Amino acid sequence: MDITKFVELSLGRWSSQRSAHHLAFRHFEQVTSTIDIVPLSVDHAEVINLCQSYQVDPQLTAHPFRMSWAGESDWDDTEKFEGTTILVPVPAPDNPQMGRLLRDQGYAETIPSIGHYHFTEDGFFVLLTEYERAMAEERIWFMNPNFRLRVSLIKTSQGSGVVTASFSSEIRSLSED
Amino acid sequence: MDITKFVELSLGRWSSQRSAHHLAFRHFEQVTSTIDIVPLSVDHAEVINLCQSYQVDPQLTAHPFRMSWAGESDWDDTEKFEGTTILVPVPAPDNPQMGRLLRDQGYAETIPSIGHYHFTEDGFFVLLTEYERAMAEERIWFMNPNFRLRVSLIKTSQGSGVVTASFSSEIRSLSED
Repeated sequence: MDITKFVELSLGRWSSQRSAHHLAFRHFEQVTSTIDIVPLSVDHAEVINLCQSYQVDPQLTAHPFRMSWAGESDWDDTEKFEGTTILVPVPAPDNPQMGRLLRDQGYAETIPSIGHYHFTEDGFFVLLTEYERAMAEERIWFMNPNFRLRVSLIKTSQGSGVVTASFSSEIRSLSED
Repeated sequence: MDITKFVELSLGRWSSQRSAHHLAFRHFEQVTSTIDIVPLSVDHAEVINLCQSYQVDPQLTAHPFRMSWAGESDWDDTEKFEGTTILVPVPAPDNPQMGRLLRDQGYAETIPSIGHYHFTEDGFFVLLTEYERAMAEERIWFMNPNFRLRVSLIKTSQGSGVVTASFSSEIRSLSED
């Protein structure tokens, strides 16, 4: 697995079930959403802007994409949520199994972030991101081209305690309208 | 990571939050439980019995243990559940990173099972078990000695479709009374 294959597999529309475990309260949160992942060209204006904000040479990027989501959570029954973010992989020049991931908006905090990713021997994408007040660790893997799983952990910024552990099962949606 | 270290880390009492995604119905199930894992001696009568039923030489086993659980699910509000099972690792003679796991009762079906386990380079315990009408794939990993995660997939016996994907976050409980 490498970033090219990973992004190619990820493109499309996904129907997601996500469970979050808020560990301090033993609370369960249930989220259903639709996720769209579409490719962007490396010279897309927003990709160039994001590179510039991190002082990254746009020539070093590969397979930028936009991820959008819309769904609802049982945490707040009355409100649907939606969002969109741009993600720009920057593979390490000397190692195709790792690199950085620029993002114009994070999961844990709604600010830009830069994460470090690598692939494990069994094809897991692992992304580590440090925020000002938290750390995020995410693992994504494909059971088959139409089914992927994702485990996300939000830890304290010291990395000692896990605050939230969440799990997504994502099924490719054949209709993309 | 090997089976000795893995079983040692697993011993004790765990407070578990589990979310099951029943994919065909997009149904969420929430389970809270307490799990106790206690070591057994290799010459414990039930361990010997289990070995004999699989025609495994008891001399080949390592670190057998008993796992018990008690909890409740929102699938059926009125009923608490509990159970217990004996697990007997049989490390491969030529490779400490893999082996078989005998169990006197499975998760997916309440019959004895024999699974095959291995450890990945990043310390994940992976267990594959074939049942008569289903396959189970389980991954367990430790974030630290007091926090472990578990992803379990139940697949059709052909292995093509995932029926249920579940996720457990397990926190070591300091009181063992």
